[in-house]
Amino acid sequence: MGGTNLRAAAVGEDGTMLDKVAGSTPLEAGPDAAVADMVRLIQELQDRLGKSALVGIGIGVPGFIRMETGVIVGWAQQPAYAGYPMRDKIEQRLGAKVILENDANSAALGEKWIGAGADVDDLILLTLGTGIGGGIISAGRILHGAQGMAAELGHMTVSPNGYPCGCGNRGCVEKHASATAIAAMGRLMNLGANLTAEDVYKLALDGNERALAIFRSMGEALGIAIASLVNIFNFPLYLLSGGPIPAWQFFAPSMLAEVERRSFTYRSSPTRIEPAKLGNEAGLYGAAYLPFQDATLDAAKAR
Amino acid sequence: MGGTNLRAAAVGEDGTMLDKVAGSTPLEAGPDAAVADMVRLIQELQDRLGKSALVGIGIGVPGFIRMETGVIVGWAQQPAYAGYPMRDKIEQRLGAKVILENDANSAALGEKWIGAGADVDDLILLTLGTGIGGGIISAGRILHGAQGMAAELGHMTVSPNGYPCGCGNRGCVEKHASATAIAAMGRLMNLGANLTAEDVYKLALDGNERALAIFRSMGEALGIAIASLVNIFNFPLYLLSGGPIPAWQFFAPSMLAEVERRSFTYRSSPTRIEPAKLGNEAGLYGAAYLPFQDATLDAAKAR
Repeated sequence: MGGTNLRAAAVGEDGTMLDKVAGSTPLEAGPDAAVADMVRLIQELQDRLGKSALVGIGIGVPGFIRMETGVIVGWAQQPAYAGYPMRDKIEQRLGAKVILENDANSAALGEKWIGAGADVDDLILLTLGTGIGGGIISAGRILHGAQGMAAELGHMTVSPNGYPCGCGNRGCVEKHASATAIAAMGRLMNLGANLTAEDVYKLALDGNERALAIFRSMGEALGIAIASLVNIFNFPLYLLSGGPIPAWQFFAPSMLAEVERRSFTYRSSPTRIEPAKLGNEAGLYGAAYLPFQDATLDAAKAR
Repeated sequence: MGGTNLRAAAVGEDGTMLDKVAGSTPLEAGPDAAVADMVRLIQELQDRLGKSALVGIGIGVPGFIRMETGVIVGWAQQPAYAGYPMRDKIEQRLGAKVILENDANSAALGEKWIGAGADVDDLILLTLGTGIGGGIISAGRILHGAQGMAAELGHMTVSPNGYPCGCGNRGCVEKHASATAIAAMGRLMNLGANLTAEDVYKLALDGNERALAIFRSMGEALGIAIASLVNIFNFPLYLLSGGPIPAWQFFAPSMLAEVERRSFTYRSSPTRIEPAKLGNEAGLYGAAYLPFQDATLDAAKAR
């Protein structure tokens, strides 16, 4: 489930994408309509590929999920879905095992499975978009926290008295380094009234000094947050994904300089900070991996 | 192994402390002398309690340990121990399984075993002393990171352009909330030239406004760091230990107010922030628990 629409994919156990379809129902139509569309998409894929091969269904949702019950507990952009027993509704319709997961967590798992993190067991993904989302993979599995709310990395404080955030905090890293923040800084620098992050990127490509300063500032904010993450986790890999990634050349130098300066763990332990590899397919792959991982775990328990 | 000396304890599988002895050799005498003293202490405990009962030996060390090899890779205060194969040296002398662990990690595990975290599987401990150390327990086990350097929580940034730290960063939380920081703020506030954190605490007890302001500031810094930890982990429990804990009444209100304001996860998920329970015995208990936990894990694997 994306911000506005649905995509579904059939993925093999080896990570091959076998087939992919897009939904037609806008999420605004409500959870029952979305479930009907989802069921239709999955059945369409089943018809094409043969039902016998279905191990299970993983669904990435841009909201908080209570893992034990498969209920969406909160989703800022789509409040109608809050409290909706998504998992059971789909399981009833399809008779197959369904696993719900937060979308940034799914993307992190996808990168770990067949993306930039295929060679490690521990990684952190930061997704730069309207806000900044996060996913933490520890010992090969998603770190959920007590209520499935872990990895709200966009709300780490990087400027204690900075801009207020909708979460109640001030100076959240997403107020300094998300696509929204890049656009806001562009407007504050008088680069244009209805500027987008992409516009700021194009100006940076043209050598505009203000646009370049914006990306340096964005990189510094990311660097402060990532340095703390490295000091906390000592993981070998930190990935970034999302719209602003093409501007890597503009924000990465200041980001890496901050991490280098602020983390002796970074300086003394091999640590990679890189763009993610799977783009906006990461969540599809990660969601698809959930039933495989679960089946492996069940088998290990049964042994 | 403490900052300057040794303590050893025999602990039963149920968490009962059976016996306890203190070493006589200062750690400055070097690793070989420390190992000789350690072996003597352990044999003394064995003689008193009977060797047949020895499951294994856990040792907490205030430095970085390479877990696979049992080698101390770095220890700022005792550089002579860096590179020393502590584990193998003791195993050779005693013929028993030895596990080395960082002291703050051990303390966190001790609190999880029989302390303030006995009812949870996930917790974070912050140890306030000369600096600020940390231990992270995830799914009942210590989170080590790739090189055993995880949980350097004292070096999270809470003031991006704050005081420089020996780690290279600026505005580390330990520069604002350790016992050392409390004393430094006391001197900066002209409360006395050779002031200790305890002196500042006594002044606070007398109602001294400057001393009270210092603890408020300390609490705010801790609150910024803990809010980020709550947003990152969504764990149910965050513990604080160390010398400044008696001043809880003076720093906790501002600390909790910051967390409340800066973390919507804290506001929407049951989260406890409390003093640890085991004091400076936490590390002894945690170190003692390591061989039991390891034996349980080995047994589970064999099954």
